[in-house]
This record gives sequence, structure tokens and C-alpha cells, in this order.
Amino acid sequence: MASRIVVIGGGAAGIGAAGAAKGTAPDAEVKVFTEYEDVGYSPCGIPYVHGGEIDDFESLFLAEKQTYVDAGIDIAYETPVRSIHPDRHEVVLDDGERVDYDALVLGTGWNYEPTGVPGSDLGGLYHVKNIRRAMEWQPVIERANVAVVTEASPIGLEMATALAHRGVETHLLDRQPWLLADAADPDIMEPVEESLRELGVHIHLGTSVEAFLGEGSVRSVRTSGGDIDADLVVVASHKQPNVELAEAAGLKVGSTGALVVNDRMQTSAEDVYAAGDCVELPHIVTGVPIAALTGSHAYAQGKVAGTNAAGGSRRYNQVYVPWGLPAGKWIVGGASTGETLATALGLPFVLGISTGISRARYFPGFRQIRVKLLFDPKSLALLGAQMVGGEGIKERADFLGMAIKMGATAHDLAWMENVYSPPIGALNEPIALAAQNCLARLENQR
Amino acid sequence: MASRIVVIGGGAAGIGAAGAAKGTAPDAEVKVFTEYEDVGYSPCGIPYVHGGEIDDFESLFLAEKQTYVDAGIDIAYETPVRSIHPDRHEVVLDDGERVDYDALVLGTGWNYEPTGVPGSDLGGLYHVKNIRRAMEWQPVIERANVAVVTEASPIGLEMATALAHRGVETHLLDRQPWLLADAADPDIMEPVEESLRELGVHIHLGTSVEAFLGEGSVRSVRTSGGDIDADLVVVASHKQPNVELAEAAGLKVGSTGALVVNDRMQTSAEDVYAAGDCVELPHIVTGVPIAALTGSHAYAQGKVAGTNAAGGSRRYNQVYVPWGLPAGKWIVGGASTGETLATALGLPFVLGISTGISRARYFPGFRQIRVKLLFDPKSLALLGAQMVGGEGIKERADFLGMAIKMGATAHDLAWMENVYSPPIGALNEPIALAAQNCLARLENQR
Repeated sequence: MASRIVVIGGGAAGIGAAGAAKGTAPDAEVKVFTEYEDVGYSPCGIPYVHGGEIDDFESLFLAEKQTYVDAGIDIAYETPVRSIHPDRHEVVLDDGERVDYDALVLGTGWNYEPTGVPGSDLGGLYHVKNIRRAMEWQPVIERANVAVVTEASPIGLEMATALAHRGVETHLLDRQPWLLADAADPDIMEPVEESLRELGVHIHLGTSVEAFLGEGSVRSVRTSGGDIDADLVVVASHKQPNVELAEAAGLKVGSTGALVVNDRMQTSAEDVYAAGDCVELPHIVTGVPIAALTGSHAYAQGKVAGTNAAGGSRRYNQVYVPWGLPAGKWIVGGASTGETLATALGLPFVLGISTGISRARYFPGFRQIRVKLLFDPKSLALLGAQMVGGEGIKERADFLGMAIKMGATAHDLAWMENVYSPPIGALNEPIALAAQNCLARLENQR
Repeated sequence: MASRIVVIGGGAAGIGAAGAAKGTAPDAEVKVFTEYEDVGYSPCGIPYVHGGEIDDFESLFLAEKQTYVDAGIDIAYETPVRSIHPDRHEVVLDDGERVDYDALVLGTGWNYEPTGVPGSDLGGLYHVKNIRRAMEWQPVIERANVAVVTEASPIGLEMATALAHRGVETHLLDRQPWLLADAADPDIMEPVEESLRELGVHIHLGTSVEAFLGEGSVRSVRTSGGDIDADLVVVASHKQPNVELAEAAGLKVGSTGALVVNDRMQTSAEDVYAAGDCVELPHIVTGVPIAALTGSHAYAQGKVAGTNAAGGSRRYNQVYVPWGLPAGKWIVGGASTGETLATALGLPFVLGISTGISRARYFPGFRQIRVKLLFDPKSLALLGAQMVGGEGIKERADFLGMAIKMGATAHDLAWMENVYSPPIGALNEPIALAAQNCLARLENQR
């Protein structure tokens, strides 16, 4: 049994780890170090406060600081860690203080990938992440007339939608040929793009940022398609694993730049665990390591890491990555791989595509759903899915993630039973229609 | 190849069968007999027109009559069948005309179980079913001041909610101790009952109907708890399989009173198939035959029956019965069995229960979801589920039906991945929380 557990990071992974460690070994000393002023809030909610859907930042906090005190978790705020020393089971704080541990959990999260263009150090570039900074940016957003969002990443899409909701003239820039190109297929993102344009967002695809211009503070963005003047620039570049401390201590880093862990969330160093955006895990279908998943993954991984750090035994499940987010007037989502990624990886697949509806066609509020399923050409096992629709996307993505895990085939899905009740579900489930479409295509090829 | 296919019934099963038969054997003659004026509408939408959520009955029609003509399906409206003769491959119409067939599909549906009390033949008793009758009843509903709905069955709950929406003083009667007692557990229905009371519905549980009173037309309902005067009585008794023709021809009927079919939807008579509410199928978890499922089941079974009748080959999947419907201000649903049914059948199970939320707690419009899961005590395989919530119930019921089919265990569900995005899903999926709750209970019992 570990008696002293140190956690670095107060995000979903770190707090998940601290709570699980305390739950596993109630007598253990659990200490969390965070460089920030707060822990245990939902950063994912920030774009929605900016957009006005949520009233205030305070509501994003999950618990009062006293809650952690009461739970016996000792959190050191605004206390950055300078280095970790797995060889002597010790971390060194920025002020030089040495803290020893029996087990260490790294929940160091991510940083925005540097844009690498001139002017990146100018003021006025907003990297959405910390809640205190978000509070400071809120009046800037409220005053802004024109905003540029660089990269149509998940956070970029959320921020572009939020700014458009606020009535800000918004330019969304991405060097790729369609929105969210790393995760989603072009046909899935087409209605999203159209709806963002309807919301007044100016979309510049195939356009790269060449420089941020201004004196002290950014005033315009130089792009491959010309300059765009802006009062506000949201830099929504890719998430990059924050592994500085771990790398300096010689921990093994994988192909994504994130920490390599086993299924107990153990790193290459003895008694050092890691969880959340700073680790990579193999994608179960493609075998490709992936990092920077979601807050839900971070929290779940943190709980596994914390349990094991405290002497318990839990394994982290394989990664099928159901995902989803609102973008424009739509919600997009999926599980595992889409068509683009599968093609890039040379993964053979057959497709099934449907356009269904979320409620009975005559029931007010029904929305279209486009479902695209990828199946293994031989076994017809489900490999991946992509969807765009208006409701029920989250639950269907979860369903499809589980279906991949359980080995469901096109036959299982084509003839699945489904709830039919006009206000909540249509006669034909769109997932079943997509699987039927795949079987019909194969039938026609015979 | 069958060259002449006769279908009896123009509901979801019959129309599904006719379409599939024509699809399988385009040259076949496909003839549908229905006693009614219409086919191919959604009877499930009727309560929502009565309640004012849907504007008109016309929108419930899926297709114009010409659509069937164009598809080569010959529909004889208002043409009841008097008898069927599997021995000589013939049906006899009410007017004496004989029609021979190569394959016959019975989609004769269901009737309301007779209440068996005096006054059941009075006018003014509304049995919600046929759309023409519904159109005639609409002005009666609009004029009604007080209504009685007998039985808190699915249609009874839908109609009580609809009448309350219309501002009619509504009394809902059921002899059982809680609402929807045949399908749902009392803890699941408790919030529904509360919300119906908030909507102004007077709920009389443990109360049986003893007589309908009136001269020519019903004016009050005599119950075990006293008389209730009413302008309108909705009789929402159980669905009873309509097997009159089949039984007269000696076809095998099972314990539910519905036709016994194999997984090709073949009855006990040669070249006679059946589908929909007139057939029974074994429930996969409990082994108990069940009949009177949903329109979605009827349609899917009809397609299997029609395909096989036309010389194709399809099997109907096992029955896990995901279900769901709005009731009061809530949506209830589940899959397979609940606690009450499992207990009645002596099926051993362990429970997992959670109260989760449908979106981030701070996101407007989030609703609570109570999830109750039943697992096999030894294998921890999922056996059944019940839920009450505000959104995402349909999709979760479909998920849980598939999870039972695929053999998912409490471990699979407890550590499932889930989409986390504040406007569409919470950090913790309620299904995962319920499975974690089951594992924690077992851990505590050790």
C-alpha cells in the first residue's frame, strides 16, 4: 500500500486520480500540485459561457475547494513543479522544496501546439483553456466586432459558433480543405459548414496563417489568402501533450509525443503513473497510438491511475473513442475511425450510409441524421462510424463505440430492434438503415 | 418462387410484408386485403394529434394510395376476409369471392381486450386505433370537459397526457398499484405519476372498472372507488392478438393467444406466414413468449415474412425489446426485463442503479436520468434495464437492447467510453454509473 501519493495536475485526470487514490487507500496522504488557481471545473464549458448559452463561469465549478479538503485531498494551488525524480521517488517544486512520494501520478495535460509564425508572442491572442483567463477575456469578447479563429479544431468550431451567437463578425481559418479534417469526413462536415455560413461565419479553408500583425497586441492576421483585421484572435491549434517534466526525467514518449503507458496507466518509470491528455493509447481498431482524447477519457484514466497508485488494481479499457460535439446548427460525432482516416491508414472497409430522422417525420422538432458506418469487408464487423444530426448523436456514438468493442456486425446492426415512439424515435433507426445499406451494396456487387 | 402472394392486413406488418415481397420477387402478384379505408399511416401518432402536438391527421400518412399502385402492390380497401384455407391455398372474402395464393402473410394485428363489464356496448367508448375514427373523435375531445381513461397502458398514458394537454379534466384508472405495471417498475414510474398529477390528471390506482353507465351513450364510469361522470371514455385495455381467421383454420396458437411462428415467421400451416401483433416470439432472456410488441417490430417482422413468402430467405432476430414512450413530463423506457418481471419469473439478478444527467449539470435543459440495470449474478451479463429521464431514453434503450444481445457485462458497461460535451452529454454516462454501482454493491458484499 502506498502511503504517500503525489499527483501533478488538477484537471480531470489529476482530480480523478486523487479521488480514486483516496477511495482505494483512505489512509494514504494524497497531495495534488497545480500551477493554476483552481481545480475541478469544466473547461469544456468555457466556449458556452462565451457564447451566452451558460450564464456565468461560476457554474462550471464542480465543487468548492472545501470539498477537497473534506475529502482529505491536499491541493497545493499555484504551485508549479520544477522536476520529477523517479529514481529517488521525489518531485521538486519551483521554489526548490522537495516532496517525496511512494507513487506519482502525472496529469500534466496539454498545451496548444505553437503556431510557429511571426507575431505569436503578441498580446491579444486568446488560447481558450484556463477559466480565470476566460473570465478576463469575456469583456473583450463582448466588445469585439471582428474575430478570427485559427483552425477548425473542436475548440475552434465551438468558439466560432459561440462568437457568431454573440453577433461578432467571425472568420474561421483552417489550412485543410474541410472543417475538423483530422476527425471527421467531408460529407459529414458539409452541413456544418453550410450552417456556420448561415450563422454569419466567414469560412476560409485551405488557408494558412502566415503571421499575426500588430504593435504589442494583435490587430490583424496575415493569411495565405490575404490579411484579415480583427479585434480578437482565438488560436485553436492542436492539443499537444504536456510531457516536459516527464521527458526531462527520461520517461518513455511515444510517436504522438505523449507518454507511453500500459493498461494500468503505468509509465516506463517505476511507481509513476500518468493519465489524460499527456498519455497515448493504442486505438483498438487501427492500432495507431492516439493522444489528446476527451475530458471523459482523462477522468476515467485518472481513476484507473489513482487506484493503481494507491495499491489497488484496475485496468483501463481499450480505446474506441466515441466522440461528439455541437458545431453550427448541427451535432457531429462518431466512434473509432471515419472514412478519411481509414483510407489514409490503408484499412480496408465497406460502407453503409443512411439519412434517417430522429423522431417520427410528422413530429415537431424531428431532425435529419446522416449515419455512415465502416465495416470490415470480410467479417462485416463494425470498424467505425461518423454522424451528423440534430439530437441523439452522443448516445448513438456511445452505442457505436460499444458495438465496435463487442464485435457487432452489419447483420447485427441492420436487423437491430429499436424503440419506435413518434416523439422520441422513428420507425426506422438510422443506424439500422445504414447497416442495411451496406448489406444491399454488397448484395448488388454479387 | 411464389407467383401470387396474398397479405391480410394493411398495418405495419402487412405493408412491410407486401413491400418486401415485391422487392424480393418483382414479378410476383402481391395483393393486400384490409377491412379499413386506408393503409400505411402511423397509428402511433394519433394520441399526439389529439393532444395538439401534431397539427393534423393527414400528416400521419406515410404515402399516397397511388404510391402503392406505382409499386405494383394491389390493395383492396374495405375488403374483409371471411376465412382462410391453407389446405387449398385459398382465402374467401366476406362477399364470398375466392382468392387463391401461393403464399399467404397474416398481418391481422390486434384488438382491444374486451373489458367484460356491463355497458361495454354503449356508445361513447373510444378505442384509439383507426385513423378515420380518430378524426371523428377529435371534435368530441375538443368539446370534452371530463374524460376517463381506463388502464395505464402505453396508449392509456399517451392519451391521458394528450387530454391533459388539451385542458380536459382527466381521470386515469388502473387496477394495478402503479402505472404501466406490466412493463415498468414502480420506482421508474413514480416521477411519471407525480408529473401527471402536476399536469392535472387524477390518478386512481388499485381501482377497477365495474361498469359503464348511460343511456345509449356512456355518461359515467362505475369503479371500485365510486362513480366518475365523464363526457368521454378512452378504453385503453390490453392489446389482444387478432387471430380469429387463423384459429378458425386450425393454425397453432401459443400461450399468449398469438400465433406461433418460427424465425422465418412461418406459422404451423404450409405457406402461411404471420407478422406483427398477431404473433408471439420467445423473449430471449426470460424465454417467455411475448406478443403485441411495437410498430417497429411489426414492420421488421413483416419484411422478413414478406421476403420469405416471396421465395427469399431471411430470419428474424431474437427479441430483446427495447421500448420507450413519453409519459407526463418524462420519458420512460428500457430493454428486456425490469425488476418486477424478473422477480415474478424467478430470474436471479443483481442490480445497479444510478441517477445521472443528460448534459453537463451547468448546461441549460439538462434532465435527470434514473437508470436501473439487471445483471446475471454469476456472469454479470446484462439481463435488462429500466430508465426514466427527459432525453436520450430511446437511444439508450436501443443501446441496452444491443448490449444484452452482444453479451455485455457490468464490467463492459461500467468502464465504457462515453462522449462528453457539455451541451449533449455529461462527464459520466448514467449507464456507466449504474453498472459501477452494481460492481460497488458486489464489492461491499464480499
